[in-house]
Amino acid sequence: MMAAGALAFDPTAESNGADVEIILGKNARTTCFEVTEPDADDDSTGDKDAYMASVLARYQKTLVERTNHHLGYPYNLDFDYGALGQLQHFSINNLGDPFIESNYGDDYWGYITNCGTEGNLHGILVGREVFPDGILYGSKESHYSVFKAARMYRMECVKVGTLITGEIDCVDFKAKLLQNKNKPAIINVNIGTTVKGAVDDLDLVIQTLEECGFSHDRFYIHCDGALFGLMMPFVKKAPKVSFKKPIGSVSVSGHKFVGCPMPCGVQITRPKHINALSRNVEYLASRDAAIMGSRNGHAPMFLWYTLNRKGYKGFQKEVQKCFRNAHYLKDRLRDAEISGMLNELSSTVVFERPRDEEFVRRWQLACERNMAHIVVMPCVTIEKLDYFLNELIQGRSIWYKDEKVRPPCLSTDIGNHNCSCDLHK
Amino acid sequence: MMAAGALAFDPTAESNGADVEIILGKNARTTCFEVTEPDADDDSTGDKDAYMASVLARYQKTLVERTNHHLGYPYNLDFDYGALGQLQHFSINNLGDPFIESNYGDDYWGYITNCGTEGNLHGILVGREVFPDGILYGSKESHYSVFKAARMYRMECVKVGTLITGEIDCVDFKAKLLQNKNKPAIINVNIGTTVKGAVDDLDLVIQTLEECGFSHDRFYIHCDGALFGLMMPFVKKAPKVSFKKPIGSVSVSGHKFVGCPMPCGVQITRPKHINALSRNVEYLASRDAAIMGSRNGHAPMFLWYTLNRKGYKGFQKEVQKCFRNAHYLKDRLRDAEISGMLNELSSTVVFERPRDEEFVRRWQLACERNMAHIVVMPCVTIEKLDYFLNELIQGRSIWYKDEKVRPPCLSTDIGNHNCSCDLHK
Repeated sequence: MMAAGALAFDPTAESNGADVEIILGKNARTTCFEVTEPDADDDSTGDKDAYMASVLARYQKTLVERTNHHLGYPYNLDFDYGALGQLQHFSINNLGDPFIESNYGDDYWGYITNCGTEGNLHGILVGREVFPDGILYGSKESHYSVFKAARMYRMECVKVGTLITGEIDCVDFKAKLLQNKNKPAIINVNIGTTVKGAVDDLDLVIQTLEECGFSHDRFYIHCDGALFGLMMPFVKKAPKVSFKKPIGSVSVSGHKFVGCPMPCGVQITRPKHINALSRNVEYLASRDAAIMGSRNGHAPMFLWYTLNRKGYKGFQKEVQKCFRNAHYLKDRLRDAEISGMLNELSSTVVFERPRDEEFVRRWQLACERNMAHIVVMPCVTIEKLDYFLNELIQGRSIWYKDEKVRPPCLSTDIGNHNCSCDLHK
Repeated sequence: MMAAGALAFDPTAESNGADVEIILGKNARTTCFEVTEPDADDDSTGDKDAYMASVLARYQKTLVERTNHHLGYPYNLDFDYGALGQLQHFSINNLGDPFIESNYGDDYWGYITNCGTEGNLHGILVGREVFPDGILYGSKESHYSVFKAARMYRMECVKVGTLITGEIDCVDFKAKLLQNKNKPAIINVNIGTTVKGAVDDLDLVIQTLEECGFSHDRFYIHCDGALFGLMMPFVKKAPKVSFKKPIGSVSVSGHKFVGCPMPCGVQITRPKHINALSRNVEYLASRDAAIMGSRNGHAPMFLWYTLNRKGYKGFQKEVQKCFRNAHYLKDRLRDAEISGMLNELSSTVVFERPRDEEFVRRWQLACERNMAHIVVMPCVTIEKLDYFLNELIQGRSIWYKDEKVRPPCLSTDIGNHNCSCDLHK
């Protein structure tokens, strides 16, 4: 499920300031299947069909194994779309503006995207079209697509510092806003950062903007809810992401908490903003208002299916389960004296990076500096966590049996109080 | 399969100069299914399952009807991926750089995109990163994503005129290049324009660049092969798109000639170019070198399956069939004295826009000014064409029975010799 691999070192890599070597391709699956020309007699011998069936069977076995050991990436793998299998026989392609019929009388505008990145690319582009000379602000722990957007769109971009939790540091944000009062602000607010699952304080971001003299017609906020955007409505203490507040857009992923065979997402913005972006396309008898042209018509069906099946109450239960299991994982790590952190509004458990790269690969763990993490999605059960924890604890007893090799220090990543290294425990 | 609809008129619409009213949303499907909360007793009554099954059954019936009357958009609807049904149970997400293992020793670099637009967005972005102050040139009949890219990327963009066939007019291209000799050139070359299916003469484009004094290190050519890129290798007289020539990238669609349940495509560029674009992402243990982050892992399986099943010879036969059927359609239109054009290197038949919008909608025809077209894909059989032609001829006998209402003139669109209006026939 990950790209192919090798070792490489790029000294220009951005890694939040720390000078660590990035090992590229360590999660790689290196198998490569050539496309071969059918033989003339394939129809009669069935050799080609047999070959392809064998490749598919092996691939399916790999997928089962990878699914069983999937913990590092925030995908809910627990879904059953068997009822939609009949639709796979059709080419379903959505073109143009899905809201063209509404004459923009609605309170919102949106479309189904291909992934979280497309949501961010769209939201930030809308922001730039609203404020062509606006500066893009985002915390340094924002998803890489935010900074990619700045490069793509040739926008001035200011990185804002973060708290130890991973949330945007509004003191630093204020200082940077005050340095650039003459230009409108376009802000990416994280509803769940990639690594630490931190939820930026939207209300404090808005308050900071106001305190710095930015009136509501001088800033545009895009909320990147790829990770937790669909979970936060069910968390009491979480900041409410709502168009009743002065935000411009919000995006969520569909293949994470909801679960979907392929990546997808939803991007929502205000109708008044979309006019600046869109262009009529006569050929389509519609308007082009999205990033992509042709859009996967199956993704909306998957989302529709799960939303209907589970409903508000079903999602609520699953969010509660995720939080409960995340706390279980955090508590068991603490009991085993392993460094770890779980933010209050998060189901992402950050912990000590396992020493063995084979272990990291086996569990598909995403790592940054000395951290690894598990994003507890509905498919991550207590049983799966126990299976993982037992392997981790057993592994550590081998990796650190020699007293000279010690577990890494995570104090700069997650704070002294969460660090169980020899110095801080 | 198309977006929802209403009437609107945007005077700013770009329409190749002609002042015609664009009717937005005329291809619209307006049905909208709400998401409803499951009842507490749904598990026992089965009401929810029954409701959803009924919606799906109706939707499937609509898809069958729309598939049977699909002619205007270039999708090969004739595929059977039943053997891949087992994979729908898995979340397959490709992240990072698929060539990370290769250490860029390959002759090419590429990835599976979500659609033709993503290929163009990537190719033009690569071009801009190679030549940050380059001017983007593209014929006015290029896909709308080319001009969207220019706006997104804040690039200077020069539209080049076209011949009556829809091909780029290299005389105009030359004049515009000579006006901008001080800046590098980034050129979008169409391997099949959207409306007329015209194939730009790649060799003449390169020759024109050279004649204007642009050395190979002063231009970047992206070939938009979304429509015919996968068909041209099987057409003898077609210009060969090859990295042996001084091109930078080429993109093709996967859901058009090949056929796929959802839109997808392939983007290929030179390894030396991709380094300017990509950034390491520690979290992924890979590089970000694509437009999107998460990528649909099912699309490569569909492409792999069809490429293996049909092979080079299978594709060759299908291309020949498409061209044969396109000529059949063109000849029958001529016999019926209906304006029409078929370019030599194309399976797109342009003809007189049907007067009845309901007819246009029923056959999902894409229209521009006085033109409609049918892109003859492998699923477009002689039987389907006869069915369509008989309805068209019958319709015209009603639309034009009153001598005061006459068929439109297409001379400015497709030339006097292809026009069968009262004046030119």
